[in-house]
Amino acid sequence: MGTVVALAGQVGGAKLADGLYRLRRAQLAIVVNTGDDFEHLGLAFSPDLDTVLYTLAGVASPTAGWEPELESHALQGMLSALGGPDRPRLGDKSLAAPILRTEGLSDDRRLTQITLEFCRHLGIEARVLPMSDDRVRTHVLTDDGAVAFPDYFTQLGCEPAVRGFQYAGAGEARIPDELLAALHAADLEAVVICPANPYHTIRPILEVNGMKELLRKRGAPVVAVTPIVGGKALKGSAGKMMRELGREPSARAVAAEYLRVIDGFVIDEEDAQFADNVRSLGIEVLAARTIMRSVEDRIALARSVLEFARSIRETKAAEAES
Amino acid sequence: MGTVVALAGQVGGAKLADGLYRLRRAQLAIVVNTGDDFEHLGLAFSPDLDTVLYTLAGVASPTAGWEPELESHALQGMLSALGGPDRPRLGDKSLAAPILRTEGLSDDRRLTQITLEFCRHLGIEARVLPMSDDRVRTHVLTDDGAVAFPDYFTQLGCEPAVRGFQYAGAGEARIPDELLAALHAADLEAVVICPANPYHTIRPILEVNGMKELLRKRGAPVVAVTPIVGGKALKGSAGKMMRELGREPSARAVAAEYLRVIDGFVIDEEDAQFADNVRSLGIEVLAARTIMRSVEDRIALARSVLEFARSIRETKAAEAES
Repeated sequence: MGTVVALAGQVGGAKLADGLYRLRRAQLAIVVNTGDDFEHLGLAFSPDLDTVLYTLAGVASPTAGWEPELESHALQGMLSALGGPDRPRLGDKSLAAPILRTEGLSDDRRLTQITLEFCRHLGIEARVLPMSDDRVRTHVLTDDGAVAFPDYFTQLGCEPAVRGFQYAGAGEARIPDELLAALHAADLEAVVICPANPYHTIRPILEVNGMKELLRKRGAPVVAVTPIVGGKALKGSAGKMMRELGREPSARAVAAEYLRVIDGFVIDEEDAQFADNVRSLGIEVLAARTIMRSVEDRIALARSVLEFARSIRETKAAEAES
Repeated sequence: MGTVVALAGQVGGAKLADGLYRLRRAQLAIVVNTGDDFEHLGLAFSPDLDTVLYTLAGVASPTAGWEPELESHALQGMLSALGGPDRPRLGDKSLAAPILRTEGLSDDRRLTQITLEFCRHLGIEARVLPMSDDRVRTHVLTDDGAVAFPDYFTQLGCEPAVRGFQYAGAGEARIPDELLAALHAADLEAVVICPANPYHTIRPILEVNGMKELLRKRGAPVVAVTPIVGGKALKGSAGKMMRELGREPSARAVAAEYLRVIDGFVIDEEDAQFADNVRSLGIEVLAARTIMRSVEDRIALARSVLEFARSIRETKAAEAES
C-alpha cells in the first residue's frame, strides 16, 4: 500500500477523506481548501479544515458535519446580547479551533503547523494540510460585483446569480513544504479529488501556484469523484452555480472542470448510463455508489476509488511497456 | 438626588454597585478596576468589568457572580481536545465579552467606549467605566519575585505569601474623559468605595495618575465599605494578604489603607464595638449590615451608605458655616 493524497473540503469531501483515512491511516495526506477561510470578530475561521478535522476525529455532527456533534450556542446568545453580530451564528465548540488558530498565527506559526498540531491532539494519524500557508480568498462574481465567498454564503444566502469566480492570492500562494513532501512521496499511489463544489472547494486548491503542474507531473493517477448525482448537487449550491455559469448540472460537466488534471472520474451508479458520455472527454470512468450515508459507505467508496486508480495505473504501465 | 460615583470590582463590589444602581439608575457612574485584566489566547479579559456588567444587567450567576448564570463549558472542552490550555477554565458565555472587546480594541476603539456600548446593549442605564483606557497591571510581589495577579490567582492558587504589590503603568495611566466628566458632575453627591480587596481591586484605581488628588479635591464625601467582617474577608484572599503584609485582618486596617482619601468608613454591624477604634483614624464611621445575600440587602446597604454620605456632607457644611 502506498501513500494517498486527497483534495477535500465540505462535508461530502470530508466523508470520502474519512473513508480513505480508515483504509490508509498515516499513509494519507489531505489537502484542504482554504479559499473559504475568513476573519470574523478578529478570529481566523477555516471551515473546510475544521470540517475535515472533526470528521476524521469522529466528533463531527451527523447532521451538520461542519461542526462538532452536540453543538451549543451559549456564547452566540451572549454575543448578541452585547451587541455583537448575529451572523454567522457561532457554535461554542466550533469556536475553539479559530481561537487557537488565531493565537498560533499571531505567534508566527504557519497554518500547516497549527493544523498538524490539531491532528496530533485529536489523535488523527493522517496529515490534514492546508493547500497553502499564504492567503487565498475565493470571490464570487455577481452582477453586483465580487463578493467574498463566506459573505455570499452567510450574508447573501447564495442568492445572487454566479457569473464567475476569482481566487485572489492563489497565483502567488506557495505550496507548503509538508504538502510538497506528501506529493513527492516515492510510494505515491493515487491523488483523489473528493466530491465537493468544483468552483469554491476544489478549484482554489488547483489554482495554487504550481499545483496543477505538480499533480500532472507525478506518476500517480489523479481520480475525481462527482459531487453531482442525477443532475443535482448532493449538498450545497454546485448545481445552481453550474446552471448560472451556463453549464448543465451533470457529472460530465464537473469532469470537464478537471480536464488536464484527472485521469479518471467516478460517477454515481445512478448515472451509469452517462459513463460513455463522460468517457468521451478522454478519461477513464467508473460508476459506483457515491452517496455516503454510513461510515461503511465511506469505506466502500474509498475502496472503489483506490481500486479504480490502481486499474488506471496498471493500464498506463501496460501501455508504457507495449 | 445627585450623581453618585462608585469604585468597584469583584463580586462584593458589584453587589453594592447594583444596590446603588437600583437607587440611582442613570445617575450612577461605576469606576472599575482593570489592573487584573489579562490576555489569554490573544483575547482581552477584564474580569472586574464583566462582573459589574453581568451583575447590573441581572444576568450574573447567583453562586459565581463573575460569570453569567447557567454558564457552560463546551468551548473549553474542545479547546482542551485541540491541545489548548486547561486554565483558566473558560465559560462559553463568559467568552463573548472578551471576543468583542479584543475586536474593538484592535479597531482602535477605547476600552471605555467598548464598555459603554456593552452597557447600552445590556440595557444598563448607569455608566460602567474602566479606571483608565491605558494599560495598568497589578503584580503581586512574592519571595520568588513579581507575579501578574491573574497568574497568582489562577496558576498559583493565591498560595505564595504576599510581600507587596506593584501597579505597573498606573503612574502614567490617564483618567478617561468620561470618568473625568462623572467626577466633575456639578451635582456629585458621594463617592462610594465598594467592598472589595483593597490591594488588587481598589488600590489600582486610586493609583491611576491624578485619581486620589481628584477624589480629594471634589466636594462630595468619599465613603468606603469594609470587605472584612469579624476579622475575615467575606470572599477572596484579602484577609490572608493582610496577615502576610503584617497587618491585622480588620476593618480598621482596611480603613487605614484608604486614609487621606475617605471621609467615612462603613463597618459591619457585627464589628460595631470597634467603631471608636476606626473613628480614631480621624474619619466618620457607620456600622451597618454589609453582608448582601439578597437584592434587598444590596439596596438597603446602598441606602445606608448614601445616607451616611449625606450626614457627612451636612456636618461638613455646618462646620464650614460656623
